[in-house]
Amino acid sequence: MANLMEDELFRAFTTYAAIVIVKMLLMGPLTAYYRITRGSFANIEDVARKSADEQKKLLRTHPDVERVRRCHLNDLENIVPFLGIALLYTLTGPELSSALLHFRVFAGSRILHTISYVCALPQPCRSVGYFAGFIVTSSMAYRVLSTVLFL
Amino acid sequence: MANLMEDELFRAFTTYAAIVIVKMLLMGPLTAYYRITRGSFANIEDVARKSADEQKKLLRTHPDVERVRRCHLNDLENIVPFLGIALLYTLTGPELSSALLHFRVFAGSRILHTISYVCALPQPCRSVGYFAGFIVTSSMAYRVLSTVLFL
Amino acid sequence: MANLMEDELFRAFTTYAAIVIVKMLLMGPLTAYYRITRGSFANIEDVARKSADEQKKLLRTHPDVERVRRCHLNDLENIVPFLGIALLYTLTGPELSSALLHFRVFAGSRILHTISYVCALPQPCRSVGYFAGFIVTSSMAYRVLSTVLFL
Repeated sequence: MANLMEDELFRAFTTYAAIVIVKMLLMGPLTAYYRITRGSFANIEDVARKSADEQKKLLRTHPDVERVRRCHLNDLENIVPFLGIALLYTLTGPELSSALLHFRVFAGSRILHTISYVCALPQPCRSVGYFAGFIVTSSMAYRVLSTVLFL
Repeated sequence: MANLMEDELFRAFTTYAAIVIVKMLLMGPLTAYYRITRGSFANIEDVARKSADEQKKLLRTHPDVERVRRCHLNDLENIVPFLGIALLYTLTGPELSSALLHFRVFAGSRILHTISYVCALPQPCRSVGYFAGFIVTSSMAYRVLSTVLFL
Repeated sequence: MANLMEDELFRAFTTYAAIVIVKMLLMGPLTAYYRITRGSFANIEDVARKSADEQKKLLRTHPDVERVRRCHLNDLENIVPFLGIALLYTLTGPELSSALLHFRVFAGSRILHTISYVCALPQPCRSVGYFAGFIVTSSMAYRVLSTVLFL
């Protein structure tokens, strides 16, 4: 088992997988930050100490909070498939340089996507981030299926 | 590491995992397609070039877009657990025929689920797709826990 | 391949991964249960046999259903990163006792989170569940990145 982590290819996968997972995980505290600063909560128990009037106000949705939540969901929709495909792709034994190219472009594209989404940068910033990541995952999926296919 | 991909069982897992991941990933462009054809966007920057009046119209939700989004979320809720459990199940070394049965039923059930959901086919099409996938994942989880349990 | 499952560390990972995946998977039927008992559905085909008047009522959202759905989404946002990071962490070969501590705290924290969320327990029950899980995943991510980093 320890051998796997002596392999440069698997270490590269591990590094970039951990980076994008941590990026995705940080959307949680970011949502909490927006909920508190914008005063927009989803659950009655989160505003239990306030008066009934204030509770009503605090339980409304806020566009900034919804924006961060959409960004988080988009991460789940794209980073999770990346993790699955990238693991299988790594196990097919591609060239290290080719794998690094895939991983780096993906990590960069998702960071661009997050910044574009949360800061509401003008299009096509967000779309470029999304499609770059999509193309990387598709390219790896193609390699996996063309190498390993066993139906 | 290369040995893993010479194993028929692991190749079968890889193939079906890649298929359901690609299916899930395609929900992204499908959502974009529905957003554009139905004229229903979630972000102000996506309709930046339109007049204020048109923007208001384009930022409303549309039932068809919401339907695709629910289908996508359901994929995340079911395909992601499948990927985790199926990897562990494969590593417990089940019979190839038994593994293939699980993987094929799951892939078929999720394709049925997606078609039923997006095309709004009459029930119980969608429920059958959902529960068939659910039973496959549960059956594999049972095998994993009964073989490996180490608390 | 079979060797992996003879390793106590990997068996511990497999056990706790399977437990939290099954927990997450059970949120699906729980949502269905709340939808049926609260009479709150999302799709027109789910209420096809009812009269137009009843359909309108049954297609409204219900706070209890939305609560379970938020809990399910929070599981996806936190359990999925855990699965990825915990697999990589296990492959870096940590001490068994240290790994077990991480896995047990995480599993416990997510069960606490689910109960707190679904039953709307007073805060900070849910937040404690959330942050305990968050800290476990972060701690494992730190170990992974500090051991393996290969950019």
